[in-house]
Amino acid sequence: MWNEMGARAREAARQLAQTSDQERIQAICLMADRLECNSASLMVANSQDLQAARQAGLDEALIDRLHLSSTRIRAMADGLRALAGLPDPLNQVLEEVKRPNGLRIRKLSVPLGVIALIYESRPNVTADAAGLCLRAGNAVILRGGSEARHSNLFIAAVLRAALAEAGLMEDAVQLMDDPGRDGARALMGMHEHVDLLIPRGGKGLIDQVVRQATVPVLRTGEGICHIYVDRQADPGMAADIIHNAKVSRCAVCNAVECMLIHRDAANTALPLIAAKLLDSSVTIRGDAATQALVPQAQAADEGDWGREYLSLTIASRVVDSLEEAIAHINRYGSGHSEAIITNDQAAARRFLSQVDAAVVYHNASTRFTDGGEFGFGAEMGISTQKLHARGPVGLRELTSYKYVIEGEGQTR
Amino acid sequence: MWNEMGARAREAARQLAQTSDQERIQAICLMADRLECNSASLMVANSQDLQAARQAGLDEALIDRLHLSSTRIRAMADGLRALAGLPDPLNQVLEEVKRPNGLRIRKLSVPLGVIALIYESRPNVTADAAGLCLRAGNAVILRGGSEARHSNLFIAAVLRAALAEAGLMEDAVQLMDDPGRDGARALMGMHEHVDLLIPRGGKGLIDQVVRQATVPVLRTGEGICHIYVDRQADPGMAADIIHNAKVSRCAVCNAVECMLIHRDAANTALPLIAAKLLDSSVTIRGDAATQALVPQAQAADEGDWGREYLSLTIASRVVDSLEEAIAHINRYGSGHSEAIITNDQAAARRFLSQVDAAVVYHNASTRFTDGGEFGFGAEMGISTQKLHARGPVGLRELTSYKYVIEGEGQTR
Repeated sequence: MWNEMGARAREAARQLAQTSDQERIQAICLMADRLECNSASLMVANSQDLQAARQAGLDEALIDRLHLSSTRIRAMADGLRALAGLPDPLNQVLEEVKRPNGLRIRKLSVPLGVIALIYESRPNVTADAAGLCLRAGNAVILRGGSEARHSNLFIAAVLRAALAEAGLMEDAVQLMDDPGRDGARALMGMHEHVDLLIPRGGKGLIDQVVRQATVPVLRTGEGICHIYVDRQADPGMAADIIHNAKVSRCAVCNAVECMLIHRDAANTALPLIAAKLLDSSVTIRGDAATQALVPQAQAADEGDWGREYLSLTIASRVVDSLEEAIAHINRYGSGHSEAIITNDQAAARRFLSQVDAAVVYHNASTRFTDGGEFGFGAEMGISTQKLHARGPVGLRELTSYKYVIEGEGQTR
Repeated sequence: MWNEMGARAREAARQLAQTSDQERIQAICLMADRLECNSASLMVANSQDLQAARQAGLDEALIDRLHLSSTRIRAMADGLRALAGLPDPLNQVLEEVKRPNGLRIRKLSVPLGVIALIYESRPNVTADAAGLCLRAGNAVILRGGSEARHSNLFIAAVLRAALAEAGLMEDAVQLMDDPGRDGARALMGMHEHVDLLIPRGGKGLIDQVVRQATVPVLRTGEGICHIYVDRQADPGMAADIIHNAKVSRCAVCNAVECMLIHRDAANTALPLIAAKLLDSSVTIRGDAATQALVPQAQAADEGDWGREYLSLTIASRVVDSLEEAIAHINRYGSGHSEAIITNDQAAARRFLSQVDAAVVYHNASTRFTDGGEFGFGAEMGISTQKLHARGPVGLRELTSYKYVIEGEGQTR
């Protein structure tokens, strides 16, 4: 049964690959319009999920993430409209050569094909992901969490009706109603029909998919980001950047989780940084050297290094050198975003070169790791793997390419 | 034990990422020189493998592939020298933007990290793959076939000594001596230490790795290539191209395995194509319509469609339309290389757009699918998957990228 869903997605992908940019744009705009004009019914479906969540005793933060207000539904529709406004990622000539034998070789961007998504809670992901996949010419199989089941089913039905209305195959967007986990398991091994599987959610979900799936996977989402305050850092800049990277939004993957302070800078910089953080009710978990300078800091233990708090908590450690900071980051980081604050250009160059992460910063907040902030538009997440895409996964990263070769009878 | 090998590779990859292009070039040239001046000893090691192969009763074609003559050893060394002459794939600025907030964002090519290779028989792959990985700044773990064990151990020892002599970590190249299969199994799940696993060999090996591995895999090698002779094809050109694509080398992945002939072209083109193939002792396995025009053709059955003969055999089928040809290819092809022969530009455009393969040709032989023929230099194989790389996997495809962002204290 799940395999048939895969086969239908494959067929829809073949047809989608032949649509024009204008057709895909129209379909996405229709999806946005139909979501908005079904706002009231969607809220009714959503209320069933909310009620079940309350009965199951889910915590308020989780229930809030599930909740769809009319404002949130409008934002979902506007997100789709913004996608429609981005440039076509397909049929771009990425490279072109004419060989001495006369062959003309062009490398053209094409859709990936069928993308599968396994995700949790927030029902707006259903519309966002469908829109991103469709804009890049891909069919999508969505496997949402059971807690958002009624909302997801309703959203998917609206999106599919809009696709049909736009004259495209509604199987370009399919939702797996998978109360057990056999659908998710099937996706992880569906080699014939799944070109890319993206897990979106907490670390537990992502780890499980990465360790079980044998189809190609894009690992996104885990952000254990560090900011290193070098010996020659401007203490005020360090305090501003660390405060911003922790406090502006603490539950996102580009928030800072650990600060590393050079011993020579600790006396002046650490009290300043700590005061600013403590003012915003941030809990600091520090090593002995941090505690000596910041009496309010709790004692950190080994479990604090490499920990993604996703809350108003930050780890702090005093290091003896740039090398020690780099080694700490390469050991405990998740390969997401890492920053150095320094006025020493040579130190910055070493840090930027030696730290192994998707995005490395000199004198800026890790919070900028975001497709929108890069000027790339909406994104599916931040890739922390090195294969295919690293950093923001936007429309371009949801494409592949093919070589098109034209000759006049050449043989080898 | 295997995991420690992975950890050493990771450490070597960190150090390699910091080497200069000149250091990597020197190491590769030393590897070439040392292989050549140890030619006699390598042949002694190789003779042990040959003797074991004969005792095991392996067939002559397989024994020939195992065999290292002084000419083949020189070719191996020259292959490394050619790699040393290719442009540096690392530290290339792939993109650069200055954002309105003053952030300077550069996308730089960087090594993938640790590449693992599981491969069969030909011992020259040991040197080729090590050279390619090293040139792109990657550490490599090589898991060769047991039939080439002595040759591989000797080659790897020479390469490692050359690395040490060049002042690089010898763990940049490690050979798994894995007479059981526990090493290969360990690699397939070594998430912490393996960034990319490439299986190289027959379909059985590749399928097994793709279906078992949970680390990122690059699927290469299977080539079920078709040539479609359209209604408006030049029969002479069709005969030349099909003959070239089958006969110039029949056991390679870019050789043609099946020809599809439009019914309207069959009467004139098929006898001409068949005569040329039969002259070169090619066996034709055709459908009833083919057999009606080519009495020498054997009867094809369902098992002939989508079959990779890798020999002087070709399947032949008469189709009623371009659409039927495209549907046949998308159903039975392996996504490698597919060609149309036609003078009808509209038909060519439809074929090039609708056939889903790494390389699609108009009026040229599928045999051109090769990194060298594209002007890209040496390659690890031809990718038939869509993620990360499609078509020739050369130095550039063995890299990843990172975003380097420079600011003056920007916060979000």
